[in-house]
Amino acid sequence: MSDMSRYMEKTGRDAKAAAKKMAFVSTAEKNQALNNIADALITQQEEVLAANHKDYTAAESSGMGAAMLDRLKLDAGRIKAMSSDVLAVASLPDPIGEVFDMKVLPSGLLAGKKRVPLGVIGAIYESRPNVTVDISVLCLKSGNGIILRGGSETINSNLALARLMREACLKANLPENVVQIIENTDRSLVGEMLVMKEYINLIIPRGGSELVRYVGDNARMPVITGGIGVCHTYVDKSADIKKAVPIIYNAKVQRPTVCNALDTVLIHKEVAGDYLPEIAQELAKAGVELHCDERSLAILKAVPSLNAVPASEEDWGKEFLALIAAVKVVDSLDEAVNHIDTYGSGHSEAIVTENYTAAQRFLNEVDAACVYVNASTRFTDGGQFGLGAEVGISTQKMHARGPMGLKELTTYKWIIYGSGQVRQ
Amino acid sequence: MSDMSRYMEKTGRDAKAAAKKMAFVSTAEKNQALNNIADALITQQEEVLAANHKDYTAAESSGMGAAMLDRLKLDAGRIKAMSSDVLAVASLPDPIGEVFDMKVLPSGLLAGKKRVPLGVIGAIYESRPNVTVDISVLCLKSGNGIILRGGSETINSNLALARLMREACLKANLPENVVQIIENTDRSLVGEMLVMKEYINLIIPRGGSELVRYVGDNARMPVITGGIGVCHTYVDKSADIKKAVPIIYNAKVQRPTVCNALDTVLIHKEVAGDYLPEIAQELAKAGVELHCDERSLAILKAVPSLNAVPASEEDWGKEFLALIAAVKVVDSLDEAVNHIDTYGSGHSEAIVTENYTAAQRFLNEVDAACVYVNASTRFTDGGQFGLGAEVGISTQKMHARGPMGLKELTTYKWIIYGSGQVRQ
Repeated sequence: MSDMSRYMEKTGRDAKAAAKKMAFVSTAEKNQALNNIADALITQQEEVLAANHKDYTAAESSGMGAAMLDRLKLDAGRIKAMSSDVLAVASLPDPIGEVFDMKVLPSGLLAGKKRVPLGVIGAIYESRPNVTVDISVLCLKSGNGIILRGGSETINSNLALARLMREACLKANLPENVVQIIENTDRSLVGEMLVMKEYINLIIPRGGSELVRYVGDNARMPVITGGIGVCHTYVDKSADIKKAVPIIYNAKVQRPTVCNALDTVLIHKEVAGDYLPEIAQELAKAGVELHCDERSLAILKAVPSLNAVPASEEDWGKEFLALIAAVKVVDSLDEAVNHIDTYGSGHSEAIVTENYTAAQRFLNEVDAACVYVNASTRFTDGGQFGLGAEVGISTQKMHARGPMGLKELTTYKWIIYGSGQVRQ
Repeated sequence: MSDMSRYMEKTGRDAKAAAKKMAFVSTAEKNQALNNIADALITQQEEVLAANHKDYTAAESSGMGAAMLDRLKLDAGRIKAMSSDVLAVASLPDPIGEVFDMKVLPSGLLAGKKRVPLGVIGAIYESRPNVTVDISVLCLKSGNGIILRGGSETINSNLALARLMREACLKANLPENVVQIIENTDRSLVGEMLVMKEYINLIIPRGGSELVRYVGDNARMPVITGGIGVCHTYVDKSADIKKAVPIIYNAKVQRPTVCNALDTVLIHKEVAGDYLPEIAQELAKAGVELHCDERSLAILKAVPSLNAVPASEEDWGKEFLALIAAVKVVDSLDEAVNHIDTYGSGHSEAIVTENYTAAQRFLNEVDAACVYVNASTRFTDGGQFGLGAEVGISTQKMHARGPMGLKELTTYKWIIYGSGQVRQ
């Protein structure tokens, strides 16, 4: 066994032992740890900012782009926001210990389910250092241990944040090993992490599609895949244009770099001629570039000063993460549903319609984590859905689908109260 | 691409297309298909029995043992029982379409979850032909497609049963491809099946520990691991011996070849001297062989005509599936919990005690799918737990834990009703 393997195994063993203790920690103690973290982020911000400065200057001199540099950077305002987010998680109800589906069986046994932590969560993520704190506090609150593996660009920030969280846990009488961080940024350690089935109950990859795919294909333990959103908004022939325009604008423009942003507009042929120019003109105000199929391009050619180009086959099914949208005219609701089925990633899909049956059919027939009628796909978010916060958005079907909050980081066990029963 | 790969891909594609239609089939149509299957099992039993006879004679001449031969064999009585089981599933409530957790969000959106099928379930299983029908009808009722891959010993029986079920589906206007069977028993096809992530949403392995481990390690899609039960019953120092004896006897003897049968008796040192001989004598009536630690062996040596031998290290953590039990004297409840933690498989664990706090501690601290107080672990079963039936028993923590019935073969999607909302 190599030194690295030994190091990874020790990390796993320590996390598992800490997680076992975490399952019995009271809500008050967990909240105390979260309050300590929120405090420490403010009182020890100089250390965190100094570490982040190291990362920033290294990234800058290695030629990192401005957008990425901005994601990496921490300042007093961002630290304050992180601290507030931790307090928000502390104020959420504790999911652990809930007993549900309890019933008396014909045998006289009283049986039901009790909500318990999953164990140890492994997080493999990229760039933004606030993810380090976000995921950790959600795992802490739900009674789980966490092994963090962030990107090499933010290693100093992440180490400072993890140290701070470990101290805050210890001060609340929680095992400090409940938060573990892989200190070595060697890429081979990701591979080692993915086979640590004995120590890690669930892996959550957060990052680009390449990372998510790699983790999904190679992990031996369950993985929550998600965070990749190829999101469509379909404008039905009975759509209200007064709703369609702001919904599409919001879904594309409000925050184009996130997974629930719009990628493709589908529009019914009967309203495309009237509505598409209006939609396109609004998007043009934000500088959105449109990649159009033949029919939509023909319609939009007539509109002056639009940035519209022919779509290529790769534009369908592409997560743009930028001010770009694909546009396609469809013959029917059926064609829209089939297009989404072929090119969607199962994240968030919307219809704009005033027709009751079209709305119901879209809700029924589109197979995605979140399906909307007359609303922006940007609402797909743990906070917006009333979960308080999220570790990510699942686009898979097992365990949890859509935003994953505290409850989604738990499992249950059957508890059965008998009085001497035996099976006949 | 080889012929086999092409064949597997076609199977997957057909199953996926059929499953997509299944999601919209009414409860009445699904029940009609199940009723047709139940009828056909009776009316077409001669074909099934003839196919089964082929399997039986081939297995017999290849030297298969009597117990395995018995598992393989079908007769009119067993066919009748299979048919009744299908009708029982037909009578269960349809889980699909249930809407839950619906609430109005601060944005005015009405959002909640709707229960939908998983898609295509792959089943990889061994020997008993009734599993072919059991799993298929549960998948049908829950709106899923199924790809069956049974053992080569039962291939003729399985093909006959699958053909019968496909015809029954077609007669009920369901797509016949909703039930697919891998007709070729070449082992390499299991490997091909495990990478068909695009077509199979969930794999359920049912068989020995080697099969379950192989599938768990090699499948690219989610897997429900389970069915391996290393089950303990702990006799606490405050146990009522009048409960302990029948509970242990039932857990070990009533059906020793199944996963929820007892494997190890743990007993508190303060009562071991009094209780162990009584427990052992009862087990001896059924011819149970005891593999004892040093302390229990010393106690049991004094008892005449017992079949008690020293335990080896491998006896702890062993699923005997036979009339054998390991026995160990422990110093405390803590030692019992730690032993279970080290050697258990997370299936079913029981304590026998009259002490309230010991019962609560055991329920809290033992990490398993099903944890019992004063009852036989043999109750871990979908039927016994009120789920109607089960495809298997999950010993993993994700998605579902314990017996998996119809609801556990579903997922949900978020449905969101808006009136033009955009995110601020």
